[in-house]
Amino acid sequence: MDIASVSNPRIKRLVALRDRRERDREGVFVVEGIRELERAVSAGLRPLEIYYDPGRFPGPPVPADVALSVAPDGMDRASYRRRSQGVIGIFARFDMDLDHLAPPPSPLYLLAESIEKPGNLGALLRTADAVGAAGLIVTDTGADPFSPNVIRSSTGALFSIPVAVATLDRAVTWLRGHDIKIFAADPGAADVLWSVDLTGPCAIVAGSEHAGLSDRARSAADSLVRIPMHGEGDSLNVSVSMAVLAYEALRQRRPHS
Amino acid sequence: MDIASVSNPRIKRLVALRDRRERDREGVFVVEGIRELERAVSAGLRPLEIYYDPGRFPGPPVPADVALSVAPDGMDRASYRRRSQGVIGIFARFDMDLDHLAPPPSPLYLLAESIEKPGNLGALLRTADAVGAAGLIVTDTGADPFSPNVIRSSTGALFSIPVAVATLDRAVTWLRGHDIKIFAADPGAADVLWSVDLTGPCAIVAGSEHAGLSDRARSAADSLVRIPMHGEGDSLNVSVSMAVLAYEALRQRRPHS
Repeated sequence: MDIASVSNPRIKRLVALRDRRERDREGVFVVEGIRELERAVSAGLRPLEIYYDPGRFPGPPVPADVALSVAPDGMDRASYRRRSQGVIGIFARFDMDLDHLAPPPSPLYLLAESIEKPGNLGALLRTADAVGAAGLIVTDTGADPFSPNVIRSSTGALFSIPVAVATLDRAVTWLRGHDIKIFAADPGAADVLWSVDLTGPCAIVAGSEHAGLSDRARSAADSLVRIPMHGEGDSLNVSVSMAVLAYEALRQRRPHS
Repeated sequence: MDIASVSNPRIKRLVALRDRRERDREGVFVVEGIRELERAVSAGLRPLEIYYDPGRFPGPPVPADVALSVAPDGMDRASYRRRSQGVIGIFARFDMDLDHLAPPPSPLYLLAESIEKPGNLGALLRTADAVGAAGLIVTDTGADPFSPNVIRSSTGALFSIPVAVATLDRAVTWLRGHDIKIFAADPGAADVLWSVDLTGPCAIVAGSEHAGLSDRARSAADSLVRIPMHGEGDSLNVSVSMAVLAYEALRQRRPHS
């Protein structure tokens, strides 16, 4: 089926979905880009619709039964990106409730407080994916995990890593209920990361860029962990801190250590 | 001395310095924000001029002999930030030639190829500062290290960490000349980071976000090192990779290991 005209109602709606309120109203999110769409589909998500410009995307994309070809100007109008790769998928939002997380044996969770910037949340998802985390829990977040910026900067990791959004209290209760120890990154901690045992079930907690670790997270932690800082600065980017701590956990957990 | 009017020639010039070409022409860079300016001054840099709005910045800032008070509208017009902290310093650019780097015993250098985004360069500087690197070498960079975005996202680390800009060939020659071993991060490497010896003089090399490690960097490396990837993605953000590798070097180098 071809939809050549920008005035076509479906293209009009696709363009309208650039607006968060419209996406919220429909309960959908938008995935743009070849790699991101492939990762969403290979993670088992089924698109409601896919729009593609055959001049840029030799289609039809999979699954073909929901694919609609679009004229170049319609694609450009609907695209978030400066240089569109010619394919956009629409998906129903999935649930990010804590109860959907199913901890494997000796899970490694990442818990980030108060992430405001979509780029930081996307980078965290990439880190969580790289370390093979059992999931990423975000508390009191201002960033919408379904925003196009998060999907883009996560390079699609949003689809491969279980994500939960919760209050800190609920997250702590959930972790305790699953016997998962809480290690919080704190520049004032006595113990450095290399001297704590991260081989058991654990959650690594990092505070926000601006406020640092909250007092409530600090008191909820089973253990505070310090990443040594050797320069003038007093903090690392949150996804950098998480990666340094998570790779130390992987080092400790590797066979023949 | 007070400069109340936006039409004052000095304010006009300050506003003109928002333009990179104007900064290039004058050979200066602009530091905005209280923390960043403090870090520049405490690193031993002497501002040519400082402009401040006494309503926002209880001045005069140090060094007072080059400080000029400015009316709020002049400050807002000159500011890059949405919410100005009321202080802007102008500095002469410093030299980023490799020959200014003076390697300490067993130095740890970070070398990044083809960094395009100012935010990535800023994050790398923060990482270099945190790990106490002897310096950051950037090759074939598209990002201007003196850009306001780099200074801001580095939170001032540009002033505390020695930075050199060079071609890859010159950087490799320089490192070899100082008996510094080159470890390049490569997802296809046989050795994982935990099994290589990073205790000697070394430079950690990471490729660009998009192209990865260049063939020339790969063949120039004494050793290729792999950061294990456990997810769907095949790469980490460059400052995350650098931090993971550099903290492994610090772990190996710490006393009583």
